[in-house]
Order: sequence, then C-alpha cells, then structure tokens
Amino acid sequence: MKKVADINHAIAVLSWDKEVNLPKDGALHRSQQVATLAGLAHTEFTATEFGTMLSRLSEMPSLSAAEKKNVSVTLDKYTKATKFSEDFVIKKSRIESEAYHAWHKAREANSYEVFKDSLSDLITLKKEEAEKLKYSGHPYDAMLDQYEPGLTVDQLDPIFEGVKKDLKKLIKKIGKSKQVDSKFLNKKYGWNRQWELGLDILENMGYDFNRGRQDLSTHPFTTSFSPMDVRVTTRVDENDFAYMLWSTIHEGGHALYEQGLPVEDYGLPTGSYLSLSIHESQSRLWENHVGRSRAYWSYWFPSLKADFPKSLKKTNLDGFYKGINKIKPNLIRTEADELHYHFHVLIRYEIEKGLMDGSIDTVDLDLVWNEMYREYLGMSAEDANQGILQDVHWAHGSLGYFPTYSLGSFYAAQFFAQAQKDIKKLNKKLSKGDTSQLLKWLRENIHQHGRRYEADELCNRITGESLNFDHFLRYASDKFLDVYNG
Amino acid sequence: MKKVADINHAIAVLSWDKEVNLPKDGALHRSQQVATLAGLAHTEFTATEFGTMLSRLSEMPSLSAAEKKNVSVTLDKYTKATKFSEDFVIKKSRIESEAYHAWHKAREANSYEVFKDSLSDLITLKKEEAEKLKYSGHPYDAMLDQYEPGLTVDQLDPIFEGVKKDLKKLIKKIGKSKQVDSKFLNKKYGWNRQWELGLDILENMGYDFNRGRQDLSTHPFTTSFSPMDVRVTTRVDENDFAYMLWSTIHEGGHALYEQGLPVEDYGLPTGSYLSLSIHESQSRLWENHVGRSRAYWSYWFPSLKADFPKSLKKTNLDGFYKGINKIKPNLIRTEADELHYHFHVLIRYEIEKGLMDGSIDTVDLDLVWNEMYREYLGMSAEDANQGILQDVHWAHGSLGYFPTYSLGSFYAAQFFAQAQKDIKKLNKKLSKGDTSQLLKWLRENIHQHGRRYEADELCNRITGESLNFDHFLRYASDKFLDVYNG
Repeated sequence: MKKVADINHAIAVLSWDKEVNLPKDGALHRSQQVATLAGLAHTEFTATEFGTMLSRLSEMPSLSAAEKKNVSVTLDKYTKATKFSEDFVIKKSRIESEAYHAWHKAREANSYEVFKDSLSDLITLKKEEAEKLKYSGHPYDAMLDQYEPGLTVDQLDPIFEGVKKDLKKLIKKIGKSKQVDSKFLNKKYGWNRQWELGLDILENMGYDFNRGRQDLSTHPFTTSFSPMDVRVTTRVDENDFAYMLWSTIHEGGHALYEQGLPVEDYGLPTGSYLSLSIHESQSRLWENHVGRSRAYWSYWFPSLKADFPKSLKKTNLDGFYKGINKIKPNLIRTEADELHYHFHVLIRYEIEKGLMDGSIDTVDLDLVWNEMYREYLGMSAEDANQGILQDVHWAHGSLGYFPTYSLGSFYAAQFFAQAQKDIKKLNKKLSKGDTSQLLKWLRENIHQHGRRYEADELCNRITGESLNFDHFLRYASDKFLDVYNG
Repeated sequence: MKKVADINHAIAVLSWDKEVNLPKDGALHRSQQVATLAGLAHTEFTATEFGTMLSRLSEMPSLSAAEKKNVSVTLDKYTKATKFSEDFVIKKSRIESEAYHAWHKAREANSYEVFKDSLSDLITLKKEEAEKLKYSGHPYDAMLDQYEPGLTVDQLDPIFEGVKKDLKKLIKKIGKSKQVDSKFLNKKYGWNRQWELGLDILENMGYDFNRGRQDLSTHPFTTSFSPMDVRVTTRVDENDFAYMLWSTIHEGGHALYEQGLPVEDYGLPTGSYLSLSIHESQSRLWENHVGRSRAYWSYWFPSLKADFPKSLKKTNLDGFYKGINKIKPNLIRTEADELHYHFHVLIRYEIEKGLMDGSIDTVDLDLVWNEMYREYLGMSAEDANQGILQDVHWAHGSLGYFPTYSLGSFYAAQFFAQAQKDIKKLNKKLSKGDTSQLLKWLRENIHQHGRRYEADELCNRITGESLNFDHFLRYASDKFLDVYNG
C-alpha cells in the first residue's frame, strides 16, 4: 500500500507541476507519463496476491480496531477495483476521454448540441457501471458511493428538501431587505500586497510552510504528496480582491486537514482523508464560518486597511463584513454566494438522479436545466457556457460528485456549532487573531483520525447526532439576518 | 521502453521539484517516492519477457540500421542490468547510502577519517561490481563504461598524458605574463537584472521557453522530461556575476541538446543523448567556445554595460574579455578555470584508476591527494573539505564519472573547430548575436542523432578523426596567449 501511495503521490507531483509550472508544449508527454503511472498503480493495487492477502487479513481476529478498518476499507476498494473487466475499463476510458473532448468543443461552440451525444454515451456507461458496482436502492447510489462512501439518495433527499423549502424561505426573507454594498471588493488591490496577505493568512491559520508552499495556478487547488508536503495554489486578480482572499482560506482549510493526517499511517486509510464531504467541510468551515465572520475580520480588517488604504478608504469593518456576505443569485456555481450555492448543487443532484433512473433524458437537457434555474434561482442562462456546460465534472465522467460540495457546507456548520460549544470564547479568540484553539479542536476531532471512521460515525462522535441540516440553517439565518437587518 | 521512460521522467520531475520547490520537511517522503519509482523502472526493464523480446529482435535481419542500434544498445543495457543478483543490489544500495551519510558527516567534521572506512567498503564493492560486469583491460574500464560506453584506460591514458605535458607547458608559458584583472566580476550586480539577463541569453542561444523554463536551485542543473519539457536552473549571487552568467550558458548548452533530440524516438536510445562526454561537449562548447569568446561579447558587452553601468564603468570590452578568461590555479574543481580544470580531473582519474587496480589505497588517501595537488597545481588543501571531500561523486558511488568532464571539453574543442570550418564567418555571426547557424549545425551533426552512433563514430563522422587532444590544445594556446599577451 505504501508502494501504491508512492505512485499516486508521484502522479500528484506531476499533476501539480502541470498546473503550476508546465511549459506550453510539455502537456502531451506529461499526460502520457501520468497515464503510465496510473496504470502501474492500478496493476499494483489489483494484483491477485494483494487481494488474497487482504481476504486473509480480514479474517484475522487479532487485529486492532484501526487495523481492521484499514483492511476492510482496502478490501472494499480492491473488490470494486477488480469488478471491471479490462474491456470495460478501456471502453470507460475511451468514452470519458471522448466526452471531455466533446465538452471542450461544445464550450468553444457555446452549444449543448455538440456535447449531447457524448453525454448520452456517458450516461449509458454510468448505468452499466452502476449495475456492475451493485446498489440496493437507487442506481445513483452506486455513483454517490464512489465519492462519498455509503452515501445514498435516501439520505440526500431529505437534506435537499431542506434546501428547497427552508433555505428558499430564508433567502426570500433576506430579499426583502436593502441590498448591501460590495463594490469596494472590485477596486484595485495591488498584486504583491495581495500575495503577501495570502501568505500571512495561511500562516495565521496554522498552515505549516515547512510542510508546504503556496503557488499560482489558473484554478486554485490543494494537493498532498504526504502530510509533510501539502501544497496550495491561488490566483491573484487585482480587480477582484475576494477571489484571492477566500480561495486562499478555502484551500488553506483543505491543506490543514492534509497536514494534520497521521504521517505514520502514510499509505493506509487511517492516514488518508475520510471522504470528499469531510474534506470540503474543512475548507468551508475556514472559508465561511471563520473567513466570513465578523470576529475574524475584527482582527484582520485594520491591517487590511493599512495594506490597501486607497481601496478601503470609505469602508469600515461593518461595511466590509456585510459586503463580503452579500447574497445575490448568480448563474455560475463557482461564483455563487454561500446560500444560493446549494441550489446549483440541488439542480445537479436532481438531474444526475433523473439521468440515472431514466426519468430525465440527455435530449433537451439544456432546456430542463434552464427550467430548473428559473424555478430555483429565478434566472436562466442565455447560453450553454453560462448554463449546462459551465462545469467540467460530467465531461470527466464524474457523476455523484456535486452533492459532496453541499454536504461539506452542512457538515461544516454542524462541526463549527460544536466547536463553539467546546472551545471557550472561540469568537473572542478569533477576534484576537488566535485560530490555534480551533485548529487544535479540528486536529483532535477530525484530522488525526484519517479514515478511521465513516462520515456518519465521525459526525456522531463529534456532535452526538448524524448530519442535520438544521445547523446550517440556524447558522445561515443568524448570520444573514444580522448582515441584512443588523 | 516508453513505459520505463515515463517512469524515469516522472523520477526526473520529482527530483527537479526536490531541488527547486521542496518544503523543508518534505524530503523523507520524496526520497521514498523516488526509490519506489526507481524500483518499478528496474522491475519493468529487467522483466524476462522483455529480455527474450530483445534477443529475438537482435536476430531479425529485416531491421533498419537505427532499429538495430536501438535493439543492441538496449540489449546491452538489459544484460548489464540483469547481471546483479538481488542480494548484490541491496548490498550496493546499502553501502552507497552509508557512504553518502558518512561523507556528509565527514564534511561536517571536516575530516577524511570519518569518510575513510565507508570509502574503503565502497571500493571493495566497486571491484566486485567490475568483476561482475567483466572487462578485458583495466578493472577501471568497467567503471568508465557505465558513464561513457566503451571508454577505456587505454584511450584515456594518452589524452591525460597530453594534459600532463602539453597543457602544463602552456600554463607555464601563460604564467610568465602579467596577470589579468577580474575584480570587476565581484562588484555588485543586481539580482533582478541578472535574472533577466540569464533569460535573454538563453533565448538568444535558441533555448525554447515553450519547451522549458529557468528556475533557481542551490546547484545549477538541466533536466529533461521529454524534448518538449527541458528545464534549467541557475543561482544568482549579487557579488559573483560570473556564476549566474556561465552556469546559465553551460546549462543552456545541455538543454539545447535535450530539446534537439528527436521527440518521435521518445524512450528509445535514438531519442536519448549519446553519452555524458558528448552531453558535456555541448555545455562546454557554449560556455567556453561561445560564451568566453571575444566575438560573443563584442555583441553582448554594450547591453551588459547598459544593464550594469556602475559595476562596469571602468571596464571595456577588451578588459572584460580578458577578465573572464583569467587563469589561476585553485583548489576547487567547480571553481577552476578552463585550463587548470583538467588537472583536477586528472588527479581524480589517477586516484580512481589506482584504487581499482590496488596501486592506491584508501588509507592516507588524503595525503596522496595533497601530494598530487602539489605536483599538478602547485598548491594543496589546508583541510579535507577543500581537498578530498570537495565533491559528492564518490559518496554517490560514482567512480568513472570525472573523466567525462574533461572529455566533454576536448570534444567541444574538436567540434567547434569543425563548426568554424563548416559555417561561413561563424565568428562574425556570433559578434552580431546570431547563434542560429551554430545551433543548426549542432542540431544536424549531433542532436538529431541521439544515440544513433557511438561517441567515437560520431566524432569521426563530424570531424574525420577520433578524439584528438591537439584541438583543445590549439584552441587553448590561441586564446590564452592572446588573452595574456594580446
């Protein structure tokens, strides 16, 4: 397993380098090198001797609980990885690669028509994949499980019901208040000072620069080569201050999780992150619960104002806090505010579910898309690039990924509510720039366990209950009614 | 072979990243990841099926000459790679790793005593290695062949005789003239302008930034992930202008070779560099024959003076040209001038040869070292770090590597003499900043062939004769007598 981890981390280095450093003409060979390593990792991981060893280990009574967990998670992964015949793997890789190219062409043509047939092939493939992987409830469960182990439609439906009803109600309420001003975020913020600020913020969060670095890339991301080398990237836009700021805090949250995993369990499930939604809970907790809180900015705002005296001349802490929490519907998921965001995911969820059970078809899916946007966000895209073609996930064959984004936010709210109970005067600490107690709490309750527990188990251990949308709703109404009526 | 090349290039990416980007605590896992990939490359390359396939191919009469060459070179490599038992490989890896650690400790203690026993073990190992690899003449031949295929003591002895006699005579002659002034090189040269100049110089040489990049590292190096991604590094020292300048030109020469290899032969010998000495011939040709020539600087000097008006205020082209070609003995190989350099290599050569045939022992080797330095350079080190511990090569287990450095210079002289015959008014072109004809000549005569020919064969094809030390001697006496008496 160390060997497989080494190969996968080598792939991560090559991929990081691709986004951060690659010269223009280097892409072709780089892809080929990554593909070769991926093939090697697959060969090593699916070796029959390895499977036999895992089966034998799974029957050994003498293992510790952590060891048992490592064996069972790996055996499950092994079983799934060996369910696909070589023919199917080749077909899958071909269809996904075709879909990716078609999506690129469709983006260039700004036309769903160009992507439609490939998407249809992809859905047929995904249905076949689901049958091979098996599922007991909805066929979409087999997709969800690949990104969030054990997650099902039965669990998600009531959560998204909460989004549809209660979150909609809250947004409606907010909509009656006067809109807040956020224009100051688009004044000019110098490149160098933004860059330095990003580093300062990471340092203050507890990100360890002896175990990582910040670089630039088109799309910010976090990657890990081991808990001793966890790297983040950002993008600096002089006319969009918010972009660097919250992408840095967001990626910083991901990175703290990775830096906090037990290094002695390198390569084992207990040395790895739990799931995508728990990973996302860490980035969102820092981004939104800390990074968009009044307490946090009451510490940072004075130095921010000193850094950018011109652009923040007419802005005070209260105005800043309100501006950075502005709520306004938008067509693009990645640019959505904290509340509308979940309607973007809800739409993906309903479409993906429908595609998998056949109640929605790829024909005219762009029309279905626009209808849903009108219903849930009160607006619809004028073209395909602003609409159904906006995200790459489907083109990568990733069905079942989107819901983990929303789950991340909801877990974040529940965890943060608990942290506020467990840590004395957390807000006061944050308002003094002291994030150390919060990080300690996250390390003890989440990071150090790796994949020792399932998401639901972890959530119960920490908060005494399963994921409960009410926590997010309470956080959201407390904060946004304050922002809009305070 | 593509697969093995992909793995090896992945290792190159991880190693480049280690030198350029690695956070302080990331080293341990990075070494482990590189070791895993190296093991995989070895397993793939030494697979029995692969050997069988190569044997069968080597008996096929229908192959083209290039195909035959690819098969024979690979079969030879395969045969050598499979000569070592697993036990021996493990022992080798252990002894080399111990030697490396001992060398580090010895450097810290500035004491040869600390390194001595490990070096002794290493020599015993190398003797065993030579017996396994087989050789027909001197046991050192088996070492040389690993870095420079086919190279023997019989070929090297007469060349180093030339160094000992004729080069010594030339240096003596120069020594009678008034020393030239090079103090201007140690004035202050601003960081940013040096960096920009380095990029300009690479661009002017024909280095393709769409297929590579320049970065910073402690020791400058060139690495290739394919001819489409060949990277160079440098180091900028504000008080040592020469360092950035000629390290950039030197690495640029290596990089042009790699960028000029036939990309369609990726993974094959014909898509790879010929040998270490031919690689070094490319870097030295650019560094010394171009980069320290009067013609080249008659183009660059005016812009250099505009870039650094203060530091070069009292220096004119003639003074600059003479200063950058100053000859003065020095204890450190990597800081040696163009002529004394070869005495450093000569000493390594004689010691390595003696260690392999038993005529020199590791006991008191530091005394032998100092004696030789007194004899050949007229000076000896006051401590081990300035003497026998200065280079890492032995600690890496690299015996037989050093001679390729000198061969590189001598090939460079012979190639450049030919280029001056073949390219009309080459000096005039260089003095106008036009290096394109020279690069075209190198591409056609050397780069495009990869390992299609052996070094001696290539040398004969290009210059009509085997390596001949006279070319270097003629170049050296023409240039340095001009510098010192002109």
